[in-house]
Amino acid sequence: MRRLRYNVATSLDGFIATPDGGYGWIVEDPTIDMVSLFSEFDTFVMGRGTYEIMLAQGDQNPLKGHRVLVVSGTLKPEEHPDIEILGPDFVSRVAALKEENGKDIWLFGGGKLFRTLIDNGLVDTLELAVMPVLLGSGIPVLPPGDHIRLNFQKVDSYPSGIQILQYTPTARKH
Amino acid sequence: MRRLRYNVATSLDGFIATPDGGYGWIVEDPTIDMVSLFSEFDTFVMGRGTYEIMLAQGDQNPLKGHRVLVVSGTLKPEEHPDIEILGPDFVSRVAALKEENGKDIWLFGGGKLFRTLIDNGLVDTLELAVMPVLLGSGIPVLPPGDHIRLNFQKVDSYPSGIQILQYTPTARKH
Repeated sequence: MRRLRYNVATSLDGFIATPDGGYGWIVEDPTIDMVSLFSEFDTFVMGRGTYEIMLAQGDQNPLKGHRVLVVSGTLKPEEHPDIEILGPDFVSRVAALKEENGKDIWLFGGGKLFRTLIDNGLVDTLELAVMPVLLGSGIPVLPPGDHIRLNFQKVDSYPSGIQILQYTPTARKH
Repeated sequence: MRRLRYNVATSLDGFIATPDGGYGWIVEDPTIDMVSLFSEFDTFVMGRGTYEIMLAQGDQNPLKGHRVLVVSGTLKPEEHPDIEILGPDFVSRVAALKEENGKDIWLFGGGKLFRTLIDNGLVDTLELAVMPVLLGSGIPVLPPGDHIRLNFQKVDSYPSGIQILQYTPTARKH
């Protein structure tokens, strides 16, 4: 059993991107050890929107060479031979993925996929890199639905002002 | 010159209330010294919505006996003799209030008033008591508009999981 960890950058007011998907507001902080962070994972799960943002980075795409699974009803497998495409049964596929041996699984985004997976009790940790910026509008870290009560685990402060806040979900009330 | 401090409880995803104004999701933490916090202020500024929520608390209203200024175009002075009602010139009135001698001024809410005052360069600190809960929807800590870049000051962690994050606004780009 390995963990599924939702680790994303958010604004202080809970957005993971501007309304048009922009992420130029994300602060860079060279003291955050991304190589070490990536080494904790061997599998990356995401929605199509997040995947396409990563794909657009070309050679800079940090997911290159990793096992990537993308939830999508429109991507064509023959056009994306390097990834696994998950269809309508993605919840059970992610549950099965957690039963495999291996390192942790990074839920790379976006919010809609996070909502479905946490509502199904499949998300083990939330790790929000909270940027020192208020956006006022954008794509939410979690779309509308039930409230999610969390247990705080820890906070790490970085010189840029980024706070990485870690939580685990509490048992759900249904 | 005294400071205007926006100090509010927010969800981890940036809401200060549920869509209908509810705040039952706010976590209580007896280790937070509210008496000490209140003693740093002698003046409280807020919008009408926030004022009416406080008024509904009757004898539990923590603003009783304090100097309270409410921005409103509808409240009638004769029905609210204990407060000062601020009209369309509220921005200059708040600026003048900051020039008075005294303790700090608490910007008690809500988000719309915060947006106008920070856009006018009048807010000195943001102090967000971030609850360990995701709401998914609600009344935002900041309505849409320009991005607000912040300087991180400090974080205080409490046993309940509440994180109080403190920031100052950076110089604005216009």
